[in-house]
Order: sequence, then structure tokens, then C-alpha cells
Amino acid sequence: MKACSTMQLPTYDDVIAAAARIEGHAHRTPVLQSATAQARWGAQFFFKCENFQRMGAFKFRGAFNALSKFDAAQRKAGAIAFSSGNHAQAVALSARMLGMPAVIVMPQDAPAAKLAATRGYGAEVVLYDRFTEDREALTQRLAAERGMTLVPPYDHPDVIAGQGTAAKELFEETGALDRLYICLGGGGLTSGSALAARALAPKCKVYGVEPEAGDDGLQSLRAGRIVRIATPKTIADGAQTQYLGEYTFGIIRRDVDDILTVSDAQLVEAMRFFAERMKMVVEPTGCLSFAGACKALEEKPPAKGERIGIIVSGGNVDLARYAELLAAR
Amino acid sequence: MKACSTMQLPTYDDVIAAAARIEGHAHRTPVLQSATAQARWGAQFFFKCENFQRMGAFKFRGAFNALSKFDAAQRKAGAIAFSSGNHAQAVALSARMLGMPAVIVMPQDAPAAKLAATRGYGAEVVLYDRFTEDREALTQRLAAERGMTLVPPYDHPDVIAGQGTAAKELFEETGALDRLYICLGGGGLTSGSALAARALAPKCKVYGVEPEAGDDGLQSLRAGRIVRIATPKTIADGAQTQYLGEYTFGIIRRDVDDILTVSDAQLVEAMRFFAERMKMVVEPTGCLSFAGACKALEEKPPAKGERIGIIVSGGNVDLARYAELLAAR
Repeated sequence: MKACSTMQLPTYDDVIAAAARIEGHAHRTPVLQSATAQARWGAQFFFKCENFQRMGAFKFRGAFNALSKFDAAQRKAGAIAFSSGNHAQAVALSARMLGMPAVIVMPQDAPAAKLAATRGYGAEVVLYDRFTEDREALTQRLAAERGMTLVPPYDHPDVIAGQGTAAKELFEETGALDRLYICLGGGGLTSGSALAARALAPKCKVYGVEPEAGDDGLQSLRAGRIVRIATPKTIADGAQTQYLGEYTFGIIRRDVDDILTVSDAQLVEAMRFFAERMKMVVEPTGCLSFAGACKALEEKPPAKGERIGIIVSGGNVDLARYAELLAAR
Repeated sequence: MKACSTMQLPTYDDVIAAAARIEGHAHRTPVLQSATAQARWGAQFFFKCENFQRMGAFKFRGAFNALSKFDAAQRKAGAIAFSSGNHAQAVALSARMLGMPAVIVMPQDAPAAKLAATRGYGAEVVLYDRFTEDREALTQRLAAERGMTLVPPYDHPDVIAGQGTAAKELFEETGALDRLYICLGGGGLTSGSALAARALAPKCKVYGVEPEAGDDGLQSLRAGRIVRIATPKTIADGAQTQYLGEYTFGIIRRDVDDILTVSDAQLVEAMRFFAERMKMVVEPTGCLSFAGACKALEEKPPAKGERIGIIVSGGNVDLARYAELLAAR
């Protein structure tokens, strides 16, 4: 394990280079506003809607950027990743678009819809037993056997730089903002966004938001080192990470102002607001940023004229589950 | 009742003038694409997302344009409308933004949420009994008593011109398209869109899509005169109109290539597609256009490289009802 001080952290220049690589491949997602949110919370919100990104989440940006940098030999052998979530589909789709093979290692009991979606993007799915097998060891063995390049879900400079392009686009469209709220799981989106914020809006306060049950990021920030927790129980399945990465923590401790936590009930409240008032489907993890902003503004009303950026990370939620969450009161 | 031939139908110049009036007040809504739709139906789709418009539907465009043209005396007395749907909120919000009073005549048994939303936009709501009172007579009496100007929901040149700005924006962003599908109720959106299509993409085929149960538009087109039907039973509550207007029919018979119908089941299928694959909430009426396009493409596959515009009209659906429709299989 390398110490952060000796690691070469990605910079905003890497975000700029990533933006050039994904241009024309990733969607430039819309930035939406809401008069209702403005009236209710007293600030002007700018929602960067990565739920409208390819495969339904920002993860496409980082995966496509990472795979784009493969050399000829790497492209021939292809990419491998372990994920049961959005990263799986991001690597699978990016590999298909770049004409290379992909293997995704997924748990045997992953939802059928996710297995089908990943296979639908043309990837080979290798199943493992969560109770008897070590997925990292399995993945590394497969990578070695097949000469494939492992693409980690968040703790990689190319992945972080790719994720930072969403905030770059946001600031380019809105100009400087007073605050930026970002969904925090392993920290790829948060650290990439922080790089963009520090370069494009140096005075902007940057906040990561994670589930109450999975507050390893907050604990790590307070402790000054990466704190590991057990897999948290939360509806925010994309933020069930147990620990930040070394790269992501290195950037977060330097560039992020604070980390907030929200309850599952607050996530559902935000999800309902997105559906009812903004007409968009946002997955529980994607609701973290706005739920965190609402909580902060309820605790302390904003200054007059504050402009707040919200990165909405994704919209991949099983429809039956989504209907249940909307209907529950 | 004036004959169509002697009526001064609005033109594309009126759409251009409306676009200038609403600029900075209406949202320029995003145009989204879907790789999944392209793979499934073999054509490239461009979705003009009026569900992200202010108050959640295209209706804001027409109402704001109409109210913007009021003279000083009209502004002082304000606007009056009868509607239990999106037009009510469109007039209420436009009046508030333009600083004039508004009265909306709504049925006593309108959903509480709609009454609250309309009052929330600052309008005075006057209730009537659907079983014993004539809402048009009541509205006209109120308009006369208070000197207010009646804003009809669709059959008015300024309303039609305003609704046409959505298609204008779409064509400006995409260039010419091969086909355009539009949700058809009273014909305001369809006729306005047709004006824009004829001017900006003369070869584009233009289709209105209405519910099977409410096919008065199709009947009218076939008969060459406005056919009236009983209030149709359909989940597309915004298309429960009983007849086209004289202005809207005048344009539709001239500029629309054909009218298609779809079943409620096809609307739910489209609604689920929008939620699951495009991450957006679309009300049943707003699903008409895409459901019609899918039906047409299933009956006859598109030519290679076809580019199809879809006007998604709105996203105002009660959340509990929406959850029910998503969950039903």
C-alpha cells in the first residue's frame, strides 16, 4: 500500500484530457433547474443529470476514458472488472464501443436484470459464489490468465479523471457556483468533481454526501486516514462501499470541504421530489447529493442568491422497486 | 361558427414571434436520444422533452405567449381559463410571472393536488358542479363581470403559435427529420408543431397520435370536418377532448400527414420504457407520440438511417397513480 504523499494524484489537466477522449461518445447531459426547489429551499439549483448519461449513470465517463487509453496489446486482450452495479455496464458498453472484449465478474445471486443488461452490452459474465469465493482473487487470476487489464470501479487516475468531466461540463454551463454536492461511494465521482471545482470555481464549497449507515468517508476525513467499515445497509446500493480508495481519499482530504450523511428516508423524499417535480427517475444513490443539500439548507438557510450545483449520479433502479419506493408514504 | 376558409390561421411567422416572447421565460427543454430505442426499433429518435418544461408540460408555451400579448387594460383585469389539467397551471403560472390576476374555473371534484397546484401558482380557483353547471357559460359570465380575457386551452392563434415553439427548437437542434410524432388532444401542440415542421423540414412526415378510445381527430381528418365524440375513456387524460378546434383542424387538415391511434396498454408500455431506459417521468398523454411511432415502426420497419422526432408533451401524473402504472404488468 503506497502512501498518498508518494502517489501521483490525477489533476485537472487529466480531466481536460478525459473530456477530449469521451467527446462524441458520452452524452453531454443536460443541466436542469427547478423553480419549485428554488421556492422551497431559497437557493438556485443546477442539476447535472447523469441519469441521462449512456447506460444511465456517470460511470460511463470513467470507464470509457480508462479503456480509451489502452495500448494495442491491451485492446486486443480486453478489459476485466468486478461489479454488480453501474461499473459493470459502463465497462461492458465502453468495451463494445471501442471494439474490445470485456469480462465482468458478478455474484451468482446478482439480479437477473443486471446480468442481462451486462450481457446485453456484449460482455462475458463470469459468476462467483459470494460466500465461498474471493472476487478480487478470482478477477486477478482471470486477468493474468487472459492478459486482460483490470479496470477498478473508482480508485484509478483515469477513472477519476473521467468522472470529473461531468462537473467540468456543469461549471462550463453555469459559471462559478457557491456550493457543489456530490454522491459519495468509493469517491471516484467526488474526487473527480473536486478537481474540476478547484480549477473552475476555486471559491465553491465542495461536499460529498454518503448514506448515514455507510459513513466511512466522513470517518476517514475526520481520522485523516482511510477507515474501513462493514458493508452498510442502505437503499443507496451504489454507495455500499466499505472504504475510499487511496487516490480518491488523497484528493478528497485535500479538495473536499466536508462530507455529509443522509438517511434512507431522506433519499426517498428526494427521489419523490425528482419524480413529482422534476419528472425524472433517479436511483437511490443518485439522490444522495440533493438530499444532502436539502438537509444542509434546512439546518441553515442559504445566503440570498446562492447558486448550488447538484450532481445527480444515475437512474438505474429496478422498476418494481422504484414503484414501491414512490408509493410508500 | 366561422368556416375555416375565412379564418386567419396562424403561420410560422407567429411561431417565430412567440419564440421571441417566451425566450428567457420558458425553458429551452433538452432533446434526448436513446441508444436502446435505436437498437430496438432501427431508427434514430430525438425526444423533445416538454415534461421538463415549466409546470411540467408544453402548455406553458402557449399560455405565456397569449398572455404576453395582452394590452395594458387586459393585463390589469387579468386572464381567465377553464381547465382541470395542465392548461390551468400554465395560465396561472404565466399570469403570476407577468404580474396579472388569474381565475381558473375547475370542477368541484378535481383532484386536491391539482387544485393546490393551481392555487400554489397564485390563481383564484372558482369551483363549479360538473353535473348541474355549464362551465363555459359560467366562465363567460365571470369574464364579462370582471372584464377578464378568456384564454382557451387550444383553439386560439396565440396558443397554437406558442405550442409550435417546441418543434421549432427541436428542428433547430436536430436539423431536418424524416418524421415527427406529436401527442394529439385538442390539436394545439399538433397544429403548432406542424407549422414549424412545414417551415423547417418541408419533407418531414407529420403525425398526430391520439388514444384509440378518443379518435375524433382521425374521424375528423377522414370526414373533412370536425367530428364530435363523447368524452373518451382513456388514461391519456390530456387527450380526452371531444373535438378539435376550428383553428387547429384548419392547420391539421392542411399540414398533418396522418393521425394514428394507440391503446392504453401501448401508452403504459411507452411509459415504462421512458422510466426504465430514459429515466424520465412521462404522463400517459405524453406517451402518445412515442407509442404511435413504435406502433408504426412495428407494422413497417423504418428505412435505413431514418431520423424521427418525438414530442414528449408532459410529465404531470399523480405519483401514486404513476407507481401503480409502472408496477402493473
